[in-house]
Amino acid sequence: MTTIGEMGEHKAISRLIQTLGSQADLVVGAGDDCAVCRMPGSGFEQVFTTDPVVENVHFLPGDEPERVGNKAVGRVLSDIAAMGAQPQWILVNVVAPPEQDFRFIEGIYRGMSALCTRFGATIIGGDLAKGTCLELHLFGTGVLPRGTALLRSGARPGDAVFVTGKLGCSLGGKHLDFMPRVEEGSFLRDSGLVNAMMDVSDGLATDLRHILGQSGVGAELDAATIPRNGTLEQALFDGEDFELLLTTAQPDALAASWPAHFGCDLVRIGSITAEQDALRVDGRLLAAKAFEHFQA
Amino acid sequence: MTTIGEMGEHKAISRLIQTLGSQADLVVGAGDDCAVCRMPGSGFEQVFTTDPVVENVHFLPGDEPERVGNKAVGRVLSDIAAMGAQPQWILVNVVAPPEQDFRFIEGIYRGMSALCTRFGATIIGGDLAKGTCLELHLFGTGVLPRGTALLRSGARPGDAVFVTGKLGCSLGGKHLDFMPRVEEGSFLRDSGLVNAMMDVSDGLATDLRHILGQSGVGAELDAATIPRNGTLEQALFDGEDFELLLTTAQPDALAASWPAHFGCDLVRIGSITAEQDALRVDGRLLAAKAFEHFQA
Repeated sequence: MTTIGEMGEHKAISRLIQTLGSQADLVVGAGDDCAVCRMPGSGFEQVFTTDPVVENVHFLPGDEPERVGNKAVGRVLSDIAAMGAQPQWILVNVVAPPEQDFRFIEGIYRGMSALCTRFGATIIGGDLAKGTCLELHLFGTGVLPRGTALLRSGARPGDAVFVTGKLGCSLGGKHLDFMPRVEEGSFLRDSGLVNAMMDVSDGLATDLRHILGQSGVGAELDAATIPRNGTLEQALFDGEDFELLLTTAQPDALAASWPAHFGCDLVRIGSITAEQDALRVDGRLLAAKAFEHFQA
Repeated sequence: MTTIGEMGEHKAISRLIQTLGSQADLVVGAGDDCAVCRMPGSGFEQVFTTDPVVENVHFLPGDEPERVGNKAVGRVLSDIAAMGAQPQWILVNVVAPPEQDFRFIEGIYRGMSALCTRFGATIIGGDLAKGTCLELHLFGTGVLPRGTALLRSGARPGDAVFVTGKLGCSLGGKHLDFMPRVEEGSFLRDSGLVNAMMDVSDGLATDLRHILGQSGVGAELDAATIPRNGTLEQALFDGEDFELLLTTAQPDALAASWPAHFGCDLVRIGSITAEQDALRVDGRLLAAKAFEHFQA
């Protein structure tokens, strides 16, 4: 017997992905921030994502419920933003033990609804089931013009690497209070200047490796340019920043067009190289060190 | 403090539904088998549903994983069938403890994929999170021509009430092995003869009350006509039959058109009355007795 703990989250997911089928209208399957599907008879595509938010994993029992709700919807909207899509519909499964205070769940819904309202999303359904601890399972859809979704697989050698906002130390509070970069993602897609994009949820180093792996390229980061809240180590390896990470072949044009009203800087932190899967910081190779939900 | 256990599942859900917003493209929000949304720029509408499948609630650790997977996707497809829609996309969140045997999860995916393939659905994403017991959270979409979704709210006094297949004793095995009535649901929508429809997941009596409540009508059932696997009590109150329950103003035309190849009968079991919220069996009022996940 092989347990999930022995395999680790990432290997288990990639094994399960291999078992999935395909379909003519499926443009991008599992493995990006969202799946992308054609909407037959229209000029649009739809993106789909799910996010679990589990007590004692993604939040603590003492956290304010409105902030937990903000995080739950925020994670989904961040995935949708990372494709450059406009958020659309949200469904929520709640799992709770019988002794769960209902007012806490009402507070979560207040937080979820407030963030949905801000970004044009609407909660349209879900379910409630009995379990041993409080969990939320969010499902979200978004929409964008056909063929315009920004994928992890589009980076090319010579691209500049950019990030929105500051990285690291999210556990200090940002992991609950962040605003998903929905308008920024939509702007970046609209610009036509971006080759690859994703959101930073598992830490800059881990997530950039996803772009490298799926694009068949490498990257060279300039440590001094990485916008951060704590140390370089924290900026590289802390998770749950929910900033956008992207590459472009036209860095000057993109930087010049960035609107001041977004309230976060778009900062160039390095370049894409032809050295496949190699992530270098100030010239030195960085060893892989991914956050693993199933390991200590 | 009021706990979820004190409130009960149904009251908690209806309280949360009241907090949800609305949107111009939202045709039917939470409260039916699926939400129904317009697909802008097309002649179609999309339906959305979620279903949790939790160890020791919806299945037991000794159940074969392929059957658990069949049930997980089957519940979602049954909700989609109950609107008369064609299944489209499925996403799956898996929650598991670190000591979970990975082969069991692979077996679940085999069962899910087999049922998806049979009914034209495709699993396109999901996530994996650590928890205390095995849970699956399924999210599904379907599609149908604009304005044709079959709702719980369409029953009219004088309608005949029909059900597909036999009711009761699902725990004997059917709750894992059932085939969702996807082709039957699509046929019934296409017929143009059906006024209201839903799937029977919480038991005939409980689910028919949803149609009565949302349509503002009553119903009179003829006990001898209810197709059943066990006693009348079991046919009325057992859950997880996953048959379709529907009403029509043209019972003879509908019964005459029912294709033999469906392999289940379409059986008339009673009539809709004007006696609001009253459910009668052989003339006697039936007291409400709903299955409650949060109560013993």
